[in-house]
Amino acid sequence: MNNAQKLPGYTLVVSCPDKVGIVAGVSRFVADRGGSLVESNHHTDVEQGWFFMRNVIIAKSLTVSLEQFREEFSPLALEYGMTWSLRDNSELQRVVLLASHASHCLADILHRWKSGDMPCQIPCVISNHENLRSMVEWHGIPFHYVPVSKDDKAQAFDRMAEIIERHRAETIVLARYMQILPPQLCQQYAGRLINIHHSFLPSFIGANPYLRAYERGVKLIGATCHYVTEDLDEGPIIEQDVIRVSHSCDKDDMVRLGRDVEQSVLSRGLRYHLEDRVIVRGNKTVVFAS
Amino acid sequence: MNNAQKLPGYTLVVSCPDKVGIVAGVSRFVADRGGSLVESNHHTDVEQGWFFMRNVIIAKSLTVSLEQFREEFSPLALEYGMTWSLRDNSELQRVVLLASHASHCLADILHRWKSGDMPCQIPCVISNHENLRSMVEWHGIPFHYVPVSKDDKAQAFDRMAEIIERHRAETIVLARYMQILPPQLCQQYAGRLINIHHSFLPSFIGANPYLRAYERGVKLIGATCHYVTEDLDEGPIIEQDVIRVSHSCDKDDMVRLGRDVEQSVLSRGLRYHLEDRVIVRGNKTVVFAS
Amino acid sequence: MNNAQKLPGYTLVVSCPDKVGIVAGVSRFVADRGGSLVESNHHTDVEQGWFFMRNVIIAKSLTVSLEQFREEFSPLALEYGMTWSLRDNSELQRVVLLASHASHCLADILHRWKSGDMPCQIPCVISNHENLRSMVEWHGIPFHYVPVSKDDKAQAFDRMAEIIERHRAETIVLARYMQILPPQLCQQYAGRLINIHHSFLPSFIGANPYLRAYERGVKLIGATCHYVTEDLDEGPIIEQDVIRVSHSCDKDDMVRLGRDVEQSVLSRGLRYHLEDRVIVRGNKTVVFAS
Amino acid sequence: MNNAQKLPGYTLVVSCPDKVGIVAGVSRFVADRGGSLVESNHHTDVEQGWFFMRNVIIAKSLTVSLEQFREEFSPLALEYGMTWSLRDNSELQRVVLLASHASHCLADILHRWKSGDMPCQIPCVISNHENLRSMVEWHGIPFHYVPVSKDDKAQAFDRMAEIIERHRAETIVLARYMQILPPQLCQQYAGRLINIHHSFLPSFIGANPYLRAYERGVKLIGATCHYVTEDLDEGPIIEQDVIRVSHSCDKDDMVRLGRDVEQSVLSRGLRYHLEDRVIVRGNKTVVFAS
Repeated sequence: MNNAQKLPGYTLVVSCPDKVGIVAGVSRFVADRGGSLVESNHHTDVEQGWFFMRNVIIAKSLTVSLEQFREEFSPLALEYGMTWSLRDNSELQRVVLLASHASHCLADILHRWKSGDMPCQIPCVISNHENLRSMVEWHGIPFHYVPVSKDDKAQAFDRMAEIIERHRAETIVLARYMQILPPQLCQQYAGRLINIHHSFLPSFIGANPYLRAYERGVKLIGATCHYVTEDLDEGPIIEQDVIRVSHSCDKDDMVRLGRDVEQSVLSRGLRYHLEDRVIVRGNKTVVFAS
Repeated sequence: MNNAQKLPGYTLVVSCPDKVGIVAGVSRFVADRGGSLVESNHHTDVEQGWFFMRNVIIAKSLTVSLEQFREEFSPLALEYGMTWSLRDNSELQRVVLLASHASHCLADILHRWKSGDMPCQIPCVISNHENLRSMVEWHGIPFHYVPVSKDDKAQAFDRMAEIIERHRAETIVLARYMQILPPQLCQQYAGRLINIHHSFLPSFIGANPYLRAYERGVKLIGATCHYVTEDLDEGPIIEQDVIRVSHSCDKDDMVRLGRDVEQSVLSRGLRYHLEDRVIVRGNKTVVFAS
Repeated sequence: MNNAQKLPGYTLVVSCPDKVGIVAGVSRFVADRGGSLVESNHHTDVEQGWFFMRNVIIAKSLTVSLEQFREEFSPLALEYGMTWSLRDNSELQRVVLLASHASHCLADILHRWKSGDMPCQIPCVISNHENLRSMVEWHGIPFHYVPVSKDDKAQAFDRMAEIIERHRAETIVLARYMQILPPQLCQQYAGRLINIHHSFLPSFIGANPYLRAYERGVKLIGATCHYVTEDLDEGPIIEQDVIRVSHSCDKDDMVRLGRDVEQSVLSRGLRYHLEDRVIVRGNKTVVFAS
Repeated sequence: MNNAQKLPGYTLVVSCPDKVGIVAGVSRFVADRGGSLVESNHHTDVEQGWFFMRNVIIAKSLTVSLEQFREEFSPLALEYGMTWSLRDNSELQRVVLLASHASHCLADILHRWKSGDMPCQIPCVISNHENLRSMVEWHGIPFHYVPVSKDDKAQAFDRMAEIIERHRAETIVLARYMQILPPQLCQQYAGRLINIHHSFLPSFIGANPYLRAYERGVKLIGATCHYVTEDLDEGPIIEQDVIRVSHSCDKDDMVRLGRDVEQSVLSRGLRYHLEDRVIVRGNKTVVFAS
């Protein structure tokens, strides 16, 4: 369910060592404050002994304020060693989009956003090319042109970091942004920096995946939405998909067909992230897909 | 997860009017008896105000016996107006398979069963043809030949009912059994009588779906696994899938390609049913797919 | 292959009663004029005794002009009773788009077109709502607002027909245009009037398919791109696809998920049409998909 | 179309440097001998300048015998530098199956074969385990047990080669046979030795692909049917497919879900091979899929 379009709700996400009584503890806590659940997902990683939970609570059913909820929940969280978050779904996340020359992923996200179909704010778009300015500005979104030349990469990334900071980005999306980000930025936005890679990882890590797919003669090409870490294309995977190709597809056909998969995989992955459906643990994700 | 191959567990399935505190009530009940959850799925149908839950509890974590659990759970169930069941996963359901001439669905289920991959017992197979006897008997399963001629249908179905009864079937599967069952049997086994229809319902209800798909020129053909009710092909849908076809497919090709979809959809649907992942409400199902 | 981006070519499409020697005849004719084939698709409908062929010839390899080719080909076509066409791929078809309030299919086609990825011209967009004007005009395409009130439908359709005529439309696309067109328009543009229906036909013909899919409890929803005939949702199918839904999807979720299928199915279908990959015979299509 | 169930036909497969007039030459040759085509597929690899063709000719339409056709076709083939083959589809290929302990791929092929749905003969099955003997023999097929111990691999492979030779195998299928074959055998049966690898290559080449997929946290697992070369898992790919997995799948679940993909990918790939739909060039394949 697309929370943005539903009853105002709070999303409570919890992960912690598995222990008998966690569900009971949390759900009793919520129920005692009148909380009516519209969505509830649990997962126990039996091997790792780890527990994951996501609850969407109808805001107006609660007898306490968000702040009170948070304050009172803290002792329980401490008791179970929880990593947790509680978000008011009506406060849309601020997402900064980074793009290069290719328009398809950006156009897709912007259209969904404009249609009220992607639950976020987009304070600005940053690109190392000028060609998408008009499209972005037509959507009423500021466009920042930050060219990245081989010699002044550091300076360019400093400028980008400043813009991202100034717009108080909570999440950054690399919508086919074709530059490798500096480690510092990857660390600062760990778990909030989303990339779309144009292959079904771990196949074809790195540059020119379509060319390599073409040369290998694969019968499926794909795309992977993942969190960015310092290791290129090695971060936790959020979503993947593939499309069938045949001998009649040349490299250009693969690029064209791949675009559709890239944009749909990125949009799904971003939506899951924005709706707090993704929990990272180690280099893997739990995704409570809707 | 395939319960049959995991730690012995109990599966608790609950549905009832939605109310604040249900999850807390049930999970507290389980936790108070030491119950460790390996799987937990919830669904709230906000529109209908109905709640659905499935928990898999590690058997040995419980401090009470199954019988005690049941007895003590009853008052809680009553309080919330629950429909509920608690199954010991190590006690495999008894599934009687009905087949006609086509072998693919039957062969697929039997192979999975023999591989320890379909969590059930198969006390017997009943068919209105003799051709599959050898295959069934090679699996060590009794085969009952019950011909159905136009004139003595009632008598044939009486004999079938008697065999089903004698083998104490909990679930009946129509593995491409091509006869319409009498209403009495449909009622008696409501929610436990599973059919595979060779179209993506509600398209092509009734006879000859592939021929009609061919004539309509569809680009996808499919199959539907559903519970049988007295209304032909109108029962609650458990699982569906499709496969792509093209102008180069004639009717025989569609039949051939369709077989693969039929058997995979039936196997998935049957597994969901056997693992208590399916809850019927009205003419729809909640399926906590793994 | 996307002809628009490749070497200039001519696309020859032929259908006729099947007869020994057709392929030899046509390919000898092409070879005798130096024609180098980059794509060649054949299909024989054995049951109907009908033959279908599509050849893409590299323009510059031909020793004759397009006109000469046409003139000289005519006697051969006559001999075999062929329906045929020969198109210069560099002369992009003129496609008029019709839309209502929903933006997703229109936005998708416009973006592909602007990216040079949909081989056509778009002389104008017609809509019975004003809300998409700005988006269309940003693309540099004229937008015509033709409201359709219950009382003056005939007058509105006359005005639309006049606009379509004036823009010399070769193909019309109903990009979620929610009005039923008058029979006269359907006849005039037979085989050139493309609709996207928001269900996997023949399921849920007519109004509110998502609501009916929701109520039936299907596990897959879909979309169908088809040529419009006077019989609502009964025309020849070009392309279909589906997406998985579950009990956790309400009607709004289905509408949202369905949008993605609608736009990708319509784009694929339209591309096939524009690249002369679709041949209609009776109420079915041969689609030489790439 | 499944040739085995259709009118007796001859399948002519040709590949050669691309040149104007090839199609005309071949189709004139066929037409001059009365040949009626039921299927005809062409592909031009524009980049490589290479041409590929497959024709299925109705046997009884030809005015010459197979031998005469072959003899008369030779000069034409020589002229164009063709690699070519002409097969009488009623003479089913002799396919030897190799298996280890896992039954699913073998069971699937045997069932299709027994149902008349896999156009081949199966002169024998060879395995390094005894557990599948009964299943194979029930199908009326000889079973050869050739254990492979670490110390006498060479001897075991010699024995296998002798059995394969004796049964005059035209094609060998590794139906989850878990031993690496010696280079000599790979060379001898180049283009006729088919393997199913349990990952979507080139991801997870080598051992334990499901474990590695689980550890990487991919959201899709797959299988690849390919010709075996001396480079492990690097041979030309015939067919691939994937299935969705989630965080709720542990390694055993992946193995179980993967089995379904493995068997369907292998069966499709094998069928394509048996119907002469696959042409290898370099390390890639042209697959005229039906």
